Amino acid sequence: MKQKPLILITNDDGFRAKGINELIKALRGRGELIVFAPDGPRSGMSSAITSLTPLKYDTVLQEDDLTIFSCNGTPVDCVKLAINEVLDREPDLLVSGINHGGNMAICVNYSGTMGAAAEGCIFGIPSIGLSVLDHRPDADFRECCRLGIKVIDDVLAHGLPHGTYLNLNVPVVERVKGLKVCHQADGRWIKEFKRSENASGHPVFWLTGEFRNDDTRADNDMLALDNGFATLVPCKVDVTDYQFLKELRKRTEE
Amino acid sequence: MKQKPLILITNDDGFRAKGINELIKALRGRGELIVFAPDGPRSGMSSAITSLTPLKYDTVLQEDDLTIFSCNGTPVDCVKLAINEVLDREPDLLVSGINHGGNMAICVNYSGTMGAAAEGCIFGIPSIGLSVLDHRPDADFRECCRLGIKVIDDVLAHGLPHGTYLNLNVPVVERVKGLKVCHQADGRWIKEFKRSENASGHPVFWLTGEFRNDDTRADNDMLALDNGFATLVPCKVDVTDYQFLKELRKRTEE
Repeated sequence: MKQKPLILITNDDGFRAKGINELIKALRGRGELIVFAPDGPRSGMSSAITSLTPLKYDTVLQEDDLTIFSCNGTPVDCVKLAINEVLDREPDLLVSGINHGGNMAICVNYSGTMGAAAEGCIFGIPSIGLSVLDHRPDADFRECCRLGIKVIDDVLAHGLPHGTYLNLNVPVVERVKGLKVCHQADGRWIKEFKRSENASGHPVFWLTGEFRNDDTRADNDMLALDNGFATLVPCKVDVTDYQFLKELRKRTEE
Repeated sequence: MKQKPLILITNDDGFRAKGINELIKALRGRGELIVFAPDGPRSGMSSAITSLTPLKYDTVLQEDDLTIFSCNGTPVDCVKLAINEVLDREPDLLVSGINHGGNMAICVNYSGTMGAAAEGCIFGIPSIGLSVLDHRPDADFRECCRLGIKVIDDVLAHGLPHGTYLNLNVPVVERVKGLKVCHQADGRWIKEFKRSENASGHPVFWLTGEFRNDDTRADNDMLALDNGFATLVPCKVDVTDYQFLKELRKRTEE
């Protein structure tokens, strides 16, 4: 008999967050679930790794088909440590999330959720990041679970290309208009800081800001989300600009 | 008369590191230099951003054409804060480094040096990351300065495409065989942890490992570095896998 799929679950909001716990509930029965997640919030950690301090982990829960570990590292540390030191076989799937907050457009760059998904992909594991565009601790994850399961079942059945992982985002609506496969929107954050001062009167700056969508193409993820669709973006680990490479070679080597 | 170019310099080893100070020396006379760098080591910070604590910065040095600021944030925080709150005009160039340690292949993913370069690119600024494959505090940066200046002069003269930044790596050799324009090597780190224990006897894990180059293509950066060449890789902010997008759309939407 074929072994049940081993599903590695992580996130960047920590193992206590509602998002990851709703994801765990939705995935029960689909395989052996190993949760290896940060011991607290690690939002905005991107693909950061910890090299100057040691990592450690603890077992939080051990049940049939579900084990939960917490770790003092970043989301990428969690993936590395789980695969290198804890799991006794390679996972069939990595799911990261569900994140409290959207990871569309260039947010994929800053996101710990997506950093973990990229890391799973580097290990050759089909990997998916899930996010809802709602930062609140009690955000509603039902639509994201419904669509996430659809995508997960497809990936378990058909896999993903080498070096490619998926980014699913779900807007705050009762029922999405549908799931659109998109590309990452071109744009950036503006008005990024709120100025304040500390107890000594020294100016300090809190990260905030609003996203400016500069993308005029029809299939950008930000536009689809604004229009009430959930979005699925295939992302690559290889960031080489192959198109510009040839011109750069002419400019540089000759 | 045309204004001197404004060059924003940052790194992930902190403003005191030899690498950034050698870079500053090499760039003196090429424009107005603003250094806005972390107040200490931030290696492996990728594109991490700080949202739960406030950022602050201090002026370290103010001379003709050279100002140095230090900041308590990540490399990407430094770029964001400098551009949003400190500089009075948009930089003509961002240079990140020179990093103590290589950022070839997938290291671009974990690197704070390259996170800062990507961030400059998101702001529309021609951006370059510079690294030497030597972690030692007293590494030799002369070859990297020589080649870096060549690349910087080319970028100041001709710019870079929207959404593309550059990654220069220099191996530990007295004189490189040449500068090769490459793509990012496909591979990953293996044997990533050294197991140890803390004072209470709890197992702890230190990040380490060796890179396994799985890339058989002739133009991968790791191979060129192994053969004594410096490498220049053009990188994209947009990580969408446009090739797989069409197939994914068929699988998902229909």
